[in-house]
Amino acid sequence: MIDNEEVSPLTLNRLSFYLRCLRHLQELGIKRISSQEMARRYHLSATQIRKDLAQFGEFGIRGVGYEVDELAEHLNALLGLDHPHAMLIVGMGNLGSALAQYLGFNYGAFNVVAGVDNDPQKIGRKVGSFVVRPAEELADVVRESGAEIGVLAVPAEAAQENYDRLAEVGIKAVLNFAPVRVKRRPGVPLKNVDLRINLEELAFFLRE
Amino acid sequence: MIDNEEVSPLTLNRLSFYLRCLRHLQELGIKRISSQEMARRYHLSATQIRKDLAQFGEFGIRGVGYEVDELAEHLNALLGLDHPHAMLIVGMGNLGSALAQYLGFNYGAFNVVAGVDNDPQKIGRKVGSFVVRPAEELADVVRESGAEIGVLAVPAEAAQENYDRLAEVGIKAVLNFAPVRVKRRPGVPLKNVDLRINLEELAFFLRE
Repeated sequence: MIDNEEVSPLTLNRLSFYLRCLRHLQELGIKRISSQEMARRYHLSATQIRKDLAQFGEFGIRGVGYEVDELAEHLNALLGLDHPHAMLIVGMGNLGSALAQYLGFNYGAFNVVAGVDNDPQKIGRKVGSFVVRPAEELADVVRESGAEIGVLAVPAEAAQENYDRLAEVGIKAVLNFAPVRVKRRPGVPLKNVDLRINLEELAFFLRE
Repeated sequence: MIDNEEVSPLTLNRLSFYLRCLRHLQELGIKRISSQEMARRYHLSATQIRKDLAQFGEFGIRGVGYEVDELAEHLNALLGLDHPHAMLIVGMGNLGSALAQYLGFNYGAFNVVAGVDNDPQKIGRKVGSFVVRPAEELADVVRESGAEIGVLAVPAEAAQENYDRLAEVGIKAVLNFAPVRVKRRPGVPLKNVDLRINLEELAFFLRE
């Protein structure tokens, strides 16, 4: 087993991307693919694919390629997608409500099971399968719902304090959508998602 | 000038990431950095950094490193961030409204200038600096607002049709948040953003 800390965010990003490519190949009914062919289809580097996968075991046969189903299953387990993850959303404004719908109540391994807010107007509202609870009851909500992933959909200035509270009440990992750098604690992995980075990539194509 | 079509999405993703690292170094007051030091600080590969940047010109001096301000300015221009981009949001539900606030009315080069919806309850509502217009007036809205980037915040089943409409009325690039694969047209770059991929990366840290 490799050490979690040694896997860079960019490697994880690529592994997720490879898994998506493999699922696409499965949809197309393709059973076997070489790193070269996969690189060509999805604009990747064959060397990078081989190097990334070699970190995690022996996949593929030289001159033959990867078994699509087998590799997809391996990556699925490697990424921790072979068992369910319950999620809690902090901040049930537009973004939190959109994420509850979007991240899904039944998206594969992921399941939004609870949401909290400190706005009395939002507390008690039904969203999908749960009712929005007061933020001050966070510890109870986490215990009762069994949530292990916290999703921060709060204003930038409230992100750090809410990450800290989630860590204190036993949440195991946090996805932060607030556009601000949050300082992580040991043992509570944090992923900062900056939606604006996608715009920067598009702008590249609009250069004069 | 390199051919846009030859730059892979993963390279663009890395260039955006490098620019963020450089902005962070600027905040810290660091003036010069080697590819090794940058790789160490941000968990990247020094070889990859040098290879990515070498595609776009001569940066850095062997044994000395990169000038942070100069490289940041180059990447900023390379990514098309040195001139403003007006954006229009299609679908002003929870996600569209959240994106309007989030992507920002004054985030550097980007500016959300208009939003459309086909729901009479949403049409006429004021969001930030604009009023939501009827989707059927899309061509007028694009002409009047000068929007060049379209943001799709519609349900999955409406994404393709709305991408096609945006392409027809002269939008130059599209960011799609609907969780579905949209087929692109030549000349209208499309970036599909799947927010769920972030969950897959977090789940990695929750493996038993």
